[in-house]
Amino acid sequence: MTQLSKAKQGRTTPQMTSVARAEKAEVAVVRSRVASGQIVIPWNPIHAPRPLGIGKGLRVKVNANIGTSMEHCSLAEEVRKAKAAVAVGAHAVMDLSTGGDLDRIRRTLLKVVPVPFGTVPVYQAGIEAIDRHGSVVDMTADDMFRAFEKQARQGVDFAVVHVGVTKESVARLRKQKRRIPMVSRGGSFHMAWILHHQEENPLYEDFGYLLELAKQYDVTLSLGDGMRSGALVDSNDRAKFQELLIIGELVEQAREAGVQTMVEGPGHMPLSDIEPNILVMKSVTKEAPYFVLGPLVTDIAPGYDHFVGGIGGALAGFVGADFLCYVTPAEHLCLPDKEDVREGVIATRIAAHAADLARGLDREVDAEFSGAREALNWEKMFRLCIDSCKAKDYRKKRLPLEETAACSMCGKLCAIEMVKKYLGTKETKTSR
Amino acid sequence: MTQLSKAKQGRTTPQMTSVARAEKAEVAVVRSRVASGQIVIPWNPIHAPRPLGIGKGLRVKVNANIGTSMEHCSLAEEVRKAKAAVAVGAHAVMDLSTGGDLDRIRRTLLKVVPVPFGTVPVYQAGIEAIDRHGSVVDMTADDMFRAFEKQARQGVDFAVVHVGVTKESVARLRKQKRRIPMVSRGGSFHMAWILHHQEENPLYEDFGYLLELAKQYDVTLSLGDGMRSGALVDSNDRAKFQELLIIGELVEQAREAGVQTMVEGPGHMPLSDIEPNILVMKSVTKEAPYFVLGPLVTDIAPGYDHFVGGIGGALAGFVGADFLCYVTPAEHLCLPDKEDVREGVIATRIAAHAADLARGLDREVDAEFSGAREALNWEKMFRLCIDSCKAKDYRKKRLPLEETAACSMCGKLCAIEMVKKYLGTKETKTSR
Repeated sequence: MTQLSKAKQGRTTPQMTSVARAEKAEVAVVRSRVASGQIVIPWNPIHAPRPLGIGKGLRVKVNANIGTSMEHCSLAEEVRKAKAAVAVGAHAVMDLSTGGDLDRIRRTLLKVVPVPFGTVPVYQAGIEAIDRHGSVVDMTADDMFRAFEKQARQGVDFAVVHVGVTKESVARLRKQKRRIPMVSRGGSFHMAWILHHQEENPLYEDFGYLLELAKQYDVTLSLGDGMRSGALVDSNDRAKFQELLIIGELVEQAREAGVQTMVEGPGHMPLSDIEPNILVMKSVTKEAPYFVLGPLVTDIAPGYDHFVGGIGGALAGFVGADFLCYVTPAEHLCLPDKEDVREGVIATRIAAHAADLARGLDREVDAEFSGAREALNWEKMFRLCIDSCKAKDYRKKRLPLEETAACSMCGKLCAIEMVKKYLGTKETKTSR
Repeated sequence: MTQLSKAKQGRTTPQMTSVARAEKAEVAVVRSRVASGQIVIPWNPIHAPRPLGIGKGLRVKVNANIGTSMEHCSLAEEVRKAKAAVAVGAHAVMDLSTGGDLDRIRRTLLKVVPVPFGTVPVYQAGIEAIDRHGSVVDMTADDMFRAFEKQARQGVDFAVVHVGVTKESVARLRKQKRRIPMVSRGGSFHMAWILHHQEENPLYEDFGYLLELAKQYDVTLSLGDGMRSGALVDSNDRAKFQELLIIGELVEQAREAGVQTMVEGPGHMPLSDIEPNILVMKSVTKEAPYFVLGPLVTDIAPGYDHFVGGIGGALAGFVGADFLCYVTPAEHLCLPDKEDVREGVIATRIAAHAADLARGLDREVDAEFSGAREALNWEKMFRLCIDSCKAKDYRKKRLPLEETAACSMCGKLCAIEMVKKYLGTKETKTSR
């Protein structure tokens, strides 16, 4: 029985209770939204991670992608990256490894990651086909389903399946004349396979079987954004919306089967395209949880894409996205290292928090922090802020020379202190 | 004669022509918007900077604040900061120095800064009053006007005047019970003065005289945001809008007098407050150019406020702000150094560009970049990107091991290369 099946029967799971408590929401509301598919709780009993709710009315969540590549492969480094991501507040971690012993890497990471753990099973099917037969198109339909089932059995909590990359959407993509036709790795595996074999995507054609496998382990499906735009100029085009229409149908089918489902989104798009994209997605999927990558609001800032994705993610979260996949500063350039992972998670957490505040959630957190700022209570500010190490380092870099509670930007011209004196607000605490 | 007076007479200045060329706009449109006050060109003939247009229909611009404090004062360092800001693309620089020989610092910076140069003259009046008499409230009305005139004569192109901090707005602030009553340094000087003397702000009371001085040197006035919110919880409150209503009246008066005027904005506010703030400001000022600080969309991320301000600035620019004042990672913590200035400018340029793209401007820049990405033409990408040094360093950090044009994230699983092979798009250039 999945969280969704139980919710449909009106049964409350410990995971629903835990989510409701963490989000200060009514359990009945959480349960009814799990039942309707508006909230997912990716929770494979084999892994049994910290319960995490994603979807309507809940805080915006952050996912960190890690994983080896064929070029760089160190299990120890991936373990460090996973731990670093969780330490700075990632709500979920995805292992996108494509190099080394994929099963060993996944099993090890599942042990050290206490939060929901996601994968893209078709990577393993494709890479094993390359290893054995020379090309990704040599994978069989069976290989695809077997990879999915194996990973579900290992404890994966959510898995990306590019079921919207079909003959129909590929045909529409051909007519689209994009600047960059496709940037999704999993999507490109499926497109290559469809074009090479002139056959339908097996995960789409036999979606019912995929649902059986997912249901058995309560793996939450993340319907992959194979057609996401890799360039601003390609954003919100016919190929993308074609895929989304197909995905909308599959979301309904999954809900009927009792399988939890979320939907993946863009990609590169101007700020002006974010709201229409999200409103259309929410409409055609009847409010499935939306898991967005970025969105990246300019193409031209490699080295700063954590920030570019943060701008897009903050607006996306404000207008309805539920789950932000981080982007690291290494995106488009190289495999991220531990420091890149850390920077990516922090930037994306800031974006998610900004979105929550805009939706009216967690405003008391900022109000409490600002109370400490008004009192120039540095210890309390450090305790409440997103990254206290960085904040402390900055303040130490240039401590004010004189005995003052202010900072070295204004020193004794501090507006906050001036106002206290003349407007007669409360006394300053002196804490450096 | 100011740019505004000439525009009213239908005369086109070389500065208007230059702005129109840079913005790919019609000269007649630029001239008519200068005449109506919707565009300003801060250009004091004594300084004669690169002509820069700010306002309706033009690209979003970026300002970098530098300057000494009483705590840290090195002219050489400020010169380095000014040069660094311009080198990474700041469109304007403000000197907010409050420590050392203020006239010498300003004259030196005016020589090395080729872009419009701004100041807050009341800082000098206030600091000299502290030096001579012990307190900022000891400055006289004459001191305030004299500081303004002296700086105008030195060549300052735009100057902040906190004319909206008046008896009326201070009274409204008292009733507001803010978490942090005031964070504007210039605003707090005026508020202290008003409360101590129980007299009206001289810059407001004798605004006509201020306009005469500004007109003589064509100093663009930036009507200061003394009541800006320093905490999210205080955003868009009655005190702020009271100041804005007063400022709206003064904008009209300035336009009638032929003085170019822009308006300063917040401040800390949730993403959800940005659009209402900007639409109201544009309405009550009849579309004066809007110069915003941030906005900072969360209070709790000291050390990352360049990024927090970039999120707010991108949305603000998209919905109508014209000029973004950067925030550095050192904001709220200490005086920024050269590296902080550099990071602040780059983050804010990314935000401004994201806003431009959302407004439909400069999309061909990103399209060209993405064409290079599709061709995996790294040299061209480095040439076109916002910070080529950073992008190159990342790619070098982990170059792909094998001979491939892809990057070390995907290596031979690169989706772009896969698509070329199976979808039959054009050949890959091999450029590492």
